[in-house]
Amino acid sequence: MKLWQKEGVSTSEKIEKFTVGRDREMDLYLAPFDVLGNLAHARMLASVNLLEQAELVDLERELKVIYAQVQAGNFEIEDGIEDVHSQVELMLTRTLGDVGKKIHSGRSRNDQVLVDLKLFTRDRLELITKETKRVFDVLVQRSEQHKNDLLPGYTHLQIAMPSSFGLWFGAYAESLTDDVALLQTAYHFANRNPLGSGAGYGSSFPLDRQLTTDLLGFEGLHYNVVYAQMSRGKTEWMALTAIANLAQTLSRLAMDVCLYNSQNFAFLTLPDALTTGSSIMPHKKNPDVAELLRGKTNRLKALPMEVTLVLSNLPSGYHRDMQLLKEILMPAIEEILDCLDITAYMLENIQVKTDLLEDKKYDLLFSVERVNELVIEGVPFRDAYRQVGKEIGEGSYAASRDLKHTHLGSIGNPANEQITALMDAQLQGFGFERVRTALEALIQ
Amino acid sequence: MKLWQKEGVSTSEKIEKFTVGRDREMDLYLAPFDVLGNLAHARMLASVNLLEQAELVDLERELKVIYAQVQAGNFEIEDGIEDVHSQVELMLTRTLGDVGKKIHSGRSRNDQVLVDLKLFTRDRLELITKETKRVFDVLVQRSEQHKNDLLPGYTHLQIAMPSSFGLWFGAYAESLTDDVALLQTAYHFANRNPLGSGAGYGSSFPLDRQLTTDLLGFEGLHYNVVYAQMSRGKTEWMALTAIANLAQTLSRLAMDVCLYNSQNFAFLTLPDALTTGSSIMPHKKNPDVAELLRGKTNRLKALPMEVTLVLSNLPSGYHRDMQLLKEILMPAIEEILDCLDITAYMLENIQVKTDLLEDKKYDLLFSVERVNELVIEGVPFRDAYRQVGKEIGEGSYAASRDLKHTHLGSIGNPANEQITALMDAQLQGFGFERVRTALEALIQ
Amino acid sequence: MKLWQKEGVSTSEKIEKFTVGRDREMDLYLAPFDVLGNLAHARMLASVNLLEQAELVDLERELKVIYAQVQAGNFEIEDGIEDVHSQVELMLTRTLGDVGKKIHSGRSRNDQVLVDLKLFTRDRLELITKETKRVFDVLVQRSEQHKNDLLPGYTHLQIAMPSSFGLWFGAYAESLTDDVALLQTAYHFANRNPLGSGAGYGSSFPLDRQLTTDLLGFEGLHYNVVYAQMSRGKTEWMALTAIANLAQTLSRLAMDVCLYNSQNFAFLTLPDALTTGSSIMPHKKNPDVAELLRGKTNRLKALPMEVTLVLSNLPSGYHRDMQLLKEILMPAIEEILDCLDITAYMLENIQVKTDLLEDKKYDLLFSVERVNELVIEGVPFRDAYRQVGKEIGEGSYAASRDLKHTHLGSIGNPANEQITALMDAQLQGFGFERVRTALEALIQ
Amino acid sequence: MKLWQKEGVSTSEKIEKFTVGRDREMDLYLAPFDVLGNLAHARMLASVNLLEQAELVDLERELKVIYAQVQAGNFEIEDGIEDVHSQVELMLTRTLGDVGKKIHSGRSRNDQVLVDLKLFTRDRLELITKETKRVFDVLVQRSEQHKNDLLPGYTHLQIAMPSSFGLWFGAYAESLTDDVALLQTAYHFANRNPLGSGAGYGSSFPLDRQLTTDLLGFEGLHYNVVYAQMSRGKTEWMALTAIANLAQTLSRLAMDVCLYNSQNFAFLTLPDALTTGSSIMPHKKNPDVAELLRGKTNRLKALPMEVTLVLSNLPSGYHRDMQLLKEILMPAIEEILDCLDITAYMLENIQVKTDLLEDKKYDLLFSVERVNELVIEGVPFRDAYRQVGKEIGEGSYAASRDLKHTHLGSIGNPANEQITALMDAQLQGFGFERVRTALEALIQ
Repeated sequence: MKLWQKEGVSTSEKIEKFTVGRDREMDLYLAPFDVLGNLAHARMLASVNLLEQAELVDLERELKVIYAQVQAGNFEIEDGIEDVHSQVELMLTRTLGDVGKKIHSGRSRNDQVLVDLKLFTRDRLELITKETKRVFDVLVQRSEQHKNDLLPGYTHLQIAMPSSFGLWFGAYAESLTDDVALLQTAYHFANRNPLGSGAGYGSSFPLDRQLTTDLLGFEGLHYNVVYAQMSRGKTEWMALTAIANLAQTLSRLAMDVCLYNSQNFAFLTLPDALTTGSSIMPHKKNPDVAELLRGKTNRLKALPMEVTLVLSNLPSGYHRDMQLLKEILMPAIEEILDCLDITAYMLENIQVKTDLLEDKKYDLLFSVERVNELVIEGVPFRDAYRQVGKEIGEGSYAASRDLKHTHLGSIGNPANEQITALMDAQLQGFGFERVRTALEALIQ
Repeated sequence: MKLWQKEGVSTSEKIEKFTVGRDREMDLYLAPFDVLGNLAHARMLASVNLLEQAELVDLERELKVIYAQVQAGNFEIEDGIEDVHSQVELMLTRTLGDVGKKIHSGRSRNDQVLVDLKLFTRDRLELITKETKRVFDVLVQRSEQHKNDLLPGYTHLQIAMPSSFGLWFGAYAESLTDDVALLQTAYHFANRNPLGSGAGYGSSFPLDRQLTTDLLGFEGLHYNVVYAQMSRGKTEWMALTAIANLAQTLSRLAMDVCLYNSQNFAFLTLPDALTTGSSIMPHKKNPDVAELLRGKTNRLKALPMEVTLVLSNLPSGYHRDMQLLKEILMPAIEEILDCLDITAYMLENIQVKTDLLEDKKYDLLFSVERVNELVIEGVPFRDAYRQVGKEIGEGSYAASRDLKHTHLGSIGNPANEQITALMDAQLQGFGFERVRTALEALIQ
Repeated sequence: MKLWQKEGVSTSEKIEKFTVGRDREMDLYLAPFDVLGNLAHARMLASVNLLEQAELVDLERELKVIYAQVQAGNFEIEDGIEDVHSQVELMLTRTLGDVGKKIHSGRSRNDQVLVDLKLFTRDRLELITKETKRVFDVLVQRSEQHKNDLLPGYTHLQIAMPSSFGLWFGAYAESLTDDVALLQTAYHFANRNPLGSGAGYGSSFPLDRQLTTDLLGFEGLHYNVVYAQMSRGKTEWMALTAIANLAQTLSRLAMDVCLYNSQNFAFLTLPDALTTGSSIMPHKKNPDVAELLRGKTNRLKALPMEVTLVLSNLPSGYHRDMQLLKEILMPAIEEILDCLDITAYMLENIQVKTDLLEDKKYDLLFSVERVNELVIEGVPFRDAYRQVGKEIGEGSYAASRDLKHTHLGSIGNPANEQITALMDAQLQGFGFERVRTALEALIQ
Repeated sequence: MKLWQKEGVSTSEKIEKFTVGRDREMDLYLAPFDVLGNLAHARMLASVNLLEQAELVDLERELKVIYAQVQAGNFEIEDGIEDVHSQVELMLTRTLGDVGKKIHSGRSRNDQVLVDLKLFTRDRLELITKETKRVFDVLVQRSEQHKNDLLPGYTHLQIAMPSSFGLWFGAYAESLTDDVALLQTAYHFANRNPLGSGAGYGSSFPLDRQLTTDLLGFEGLHYNVVYAQMSRGKTEWMALTAIANLAQTLSRLAMDVCLYNSQNFAFLTLPDALTTGSSIMPHKKNPDVAELLRGKTNRLKALPMEVTLVLSNLPSGYHRDMQLLKEILMPAIEEILDCLDITAYMLENIQVKTDLLEDKKYDLLFSVERVNELVIEGVPFRDAYRQVGKEIGEGSYAASRDLKHTHLGSIGNPANEQITALMDAQLQGFGFERVRTALEALIQ
């Protein structure tokens, strides 16, 4: 029954559906983080005497019970309860009475949802980074394995110079080192504490914001309470921008795979698990998985703009529009994780063709080798270039297929060791360990 | 005369106009960096014996002459010369003959333009960062100055809780600390050496890529030659993404200014220099400058998508489409620099209204203060909230206008010192000094 | 269990989930249209002797049984069946044996899904158009009702000249007349028959494509079979562009409502059903529904770009990426229908304030009236303008609040009759009636 | 000297540069239309007695003098004059004194620039449509010429079924018939009169808006004065959306050309005028023109979003941001006209390869022909499909290369006649003739 089918749906049901939307579904992602935020907030309230020590003990115990429910998959948002925040407060009030009613002191739902979103986003960016590293490892392994398997290199889709599968796989590995750098920037955006900013204008209680910052493992605060609320939307945009950039790398890889798998290139083949047939053409083995990888990652590239459209020209201060960003961010995270997983599998199972360059069609790939020979013999580059051009025009050009590319990053020296070191250095910069330690201390 | 006005324009002129486009204009931005790239490349060629020492001396001397011409504004791309790279090579060949013809050994125009773009982008991101810091300083100064000037705080565009001009200016200052973090990521993307990657497939010469990396002050290489070429487009996208994010901060600020300057808010006034009149309404003082700031920064937000559209689904390897990205990047850099400059001026000259909260319309801003008083008296938050709601409904609510916000980041403690420290720490991470030292050594 | 949680999920399950995605869910939208397409295709096959008359009778009977199941909500895609097309063919083969196996002659899944999409899109664009007309009717009614309720008119967010609620409601009504024009263009894009194009290269059977065109009520064919397949994606883009344009109208309306509902404007109030409270501020009545309307419609504006990103730089010929467009189009249609429904409700229930212009703050709204008086007295406009400017500067300006706007489209003459006639003329151009007649004849 | 180079540039110069921007350059496009708008407005003023008949005679004479200057290329916006509208009024006041000062009665710069933009956009959409028709004619001609030159047809970039150059060229021709339909919608958006709406709130003068509508050849009015101003931005968005859609067709065509020109496809060759060499590889002939066509049209696809970003969440009423849209629209129109011109040239000069399908690699293209033979012999389609699949697997499949595609839109019957009729019908719907007649009457 759709909303616009008006028979039998009351106005209040329509409006509720319109306002709640997919919130309850999205909020389940936030549940563990809401409990963590509550734990830190309660401890802070006690530290500034807005809770008795005994009240804190009760709250911590019950919050840990709820956390265990979440971890076990037993947590639910009950019918008629608006969101995860109300659900947790309700559960505390049910078991603890007045103590439950005290936990929202010095807090607004605005900073509560924001801290949940920060913790969630931080968590998922770690996961995405680790899955990216897994793809990276496959790429480096395949690059090393196919170091000596030559491939035509193209510019302008025209055959250009010799390349290799070693370089091709390795290029995408190195691309991921930059993509991880942007993931890290997004991680740092997410890793700042908004708690204590309330509805965006702070509180008259003497909140200890540094304490919640430390308890939740944040690397710092959003100090200014007005800015803390402004970071809503910006955090999601930044995470989605990092995802979009990663998606662009995967998308280009998928395009290469589709093209190289075409009969007209025939550089690689895909295992049957990654191809499907046609309803009409009995001979078909289509690379649907690579195409869907391309399409899905291309869709992800639209999402930063979708967030931008929601935020554009909104004056400062919270607006309900921002709630919709959860529906953009959360499915996008699932999607990129799926894409990374499939990419790893695809890369592990691609079969590359060897001896590709023996085809006469590729003779001209070696024209620069010929130019360089002349340069070594002392002909100025520009003259050597003209001479080989003339040889080609006159048909006297003969390709030597001898390749001696040795410099850093070239066919003979794809620099995978250095690229791996670069990736490892990037990974160090996140500080995953410090976060884990803090959260473990908080939850037990 | 437009291209499509077909009379009198030959086909070859049309095609030339179509292919050259705005390239010659854009290439002037690259001129100093092309000379620097040539200097580093020449030294490297000599180090691997592809140039004699005497040839190097000649080349360095002539390149420095050209550099001086560029600096003096006397460098031109001559009629019939396609781009800056050809112009420089032509000038060298004119004065040095065969030696000039040797400089393109071990290089392709692809890695040449790419290294120019990297150096240019790195340079301009430094400039943008410094202009951002200038705006930051004004914001912090105004925040301190108006620490005690209260302002209604809004959520949902409804009056919410007390805020202050101190918080409002300070929020944008803190926003810039995050914006600078993303500028820095873009800076690191730009700060890697592609030289030696040739057309994307390296070279059979024993190039010393580490040497050019050091000479040009790059913090590292794009190792894999295929990836080096893939970074074309990605570098521009990354820079434009950082610019778009900064633009979003300015755009929101401009929206606030337009709204707060409306007679219905009347929170601030603008100096005459920043307003204009109407052709029909003699009473008007319109905030055109703030509106144009908003509009221009909103336009900038579209540019990462424009780059994405050019790059999407292109297989790996260079394509001529990428040349068009210069026309997106370069004007955008001018635009953001203009916007930052105008923003600084506007912020310095805004006049804020004082005593705004004495208007009875804003009584309800203090309802949370009343709730918190009750909480301090021992009423559980949720009950206190209900009680004040009841008071408001019954008309018995009386606002105390006493504000005691003291926690970190709140009205009484806007944390500008910490925010300034955060900005300073961000600025350290760029490494501007190291780059300057390297370039000065290279050029003399 | 997510895909990237690798324990216990086999590779083939992962891949199936990746390829099938939300297809089975989306395909339920297509079910009635798939049956209609089958009915037309079967009749055509019989007409060119690829089916016996008795076989046709069997197929028609069984297809109508399936159609009834769909209408009753009993149609399901069984586990292990890939899509709606396979499900229908399976059901026919189960009941009819070899006859079921014949129905795919002269057809590919490509033109089958495309004809389904065309019929579905055409159907939903009719529904959207009719819901838009419903919103239009409310707007015209409110415009007439509040013809004489004046409102400050703004330019640059500065008070400008007198306006009225009659003009404000009526402006959005007229906007919808243009929005319906674009919906109609999208409707015509959807209303062309691709059947017979097969996989995009036609068939060696003597198909009668005009017959299926007539049977399905299409206004014409996509003649060229290669273009028929190219219209995949273009049809969805066009529909989403028309939806985005309509969304922009609703989004601006929602922004006006949020602003006018702010205490600083206070031009209108919203019924309680459309507002919600705050978790911290007991006084709040936030216009969440209007904000969500704004946010949801702003999200919709991103979707044409999302489609564009999937399609960009794909060479001609079908690619699996296009399947993902269903997941963009179908939820967007639900969303715009919901938004239109809520808009109608909101517009019916907005309460407008009267006597707004008596506030002294709005005196200057009447400055042009004063200029015009002088012009009537014979002062050239430019001189009268200067004189009133001087009066305002010197404080001698006195506003007459007498308004005599009489020309077409002005306060005194908002032209709702003409605007309604324009809307009616637009609606005529769709040809809904002809389509309904054809489909009723086909299904019985 | 850039704005942000602060030495020697005064603040007022900076601000002027920031506000004027490229306006004076863009306004030259509007000059002829501004004169036409003035002519119609003056006649209308006289008709309602706001001008004497003698004054009208003077104004008409002088306006025609200015129009002639514009046509001759002698019109200039003088230093210190803000825009084209002020310039024209200034020229009238210089020659006619008080009469010149009267022409702005009953008008605001807002409706004046809007009517100019409408007339300009209408004019340029006509030009774009006619250039599109020129490309269409080339495509139809090439389609007919190569009706019998077969081409492999692809799905999923895998060889699929036989196609032909006749179909390939013809597909793009038919695409243009739909693209022209959207251009026509944009034309109708542009073809409504906003004059008389003033600053968006009408006038107390008894303006005769129908008269200016008729004089300027508009097909109707934007009745509601508030909506008339809302159409600012919407008109530009609609025109750019139609341009973006046309660009998508050209972009896909260019991608096909680049791919088919690659040595791995080798389906077509380009004349030397359309290719360029490499700075390093002496053998290269790169299809730069097709790549730039692809890149430029891809950039155009971003522009509707750029407009959307400027307009999003602006409340109703004019904002100065909208002025920036001229800088998006006007260069885009130049660009699409250039692209169409180059496309026509490229299509005229492409050389297609013949006998492509004789290559053994393409044997499997004919598998559906084999299936269909079996169907004709009475085997149910689904069984025939399986049988041929088995033949292929076992190596017994033998391709008959006999093709008998005869149905409408297929290889043997590409329906160019019907497609041409469709295009002609679309062109009828614009009403170009009626507009020309009106404007000719107005100017003489």
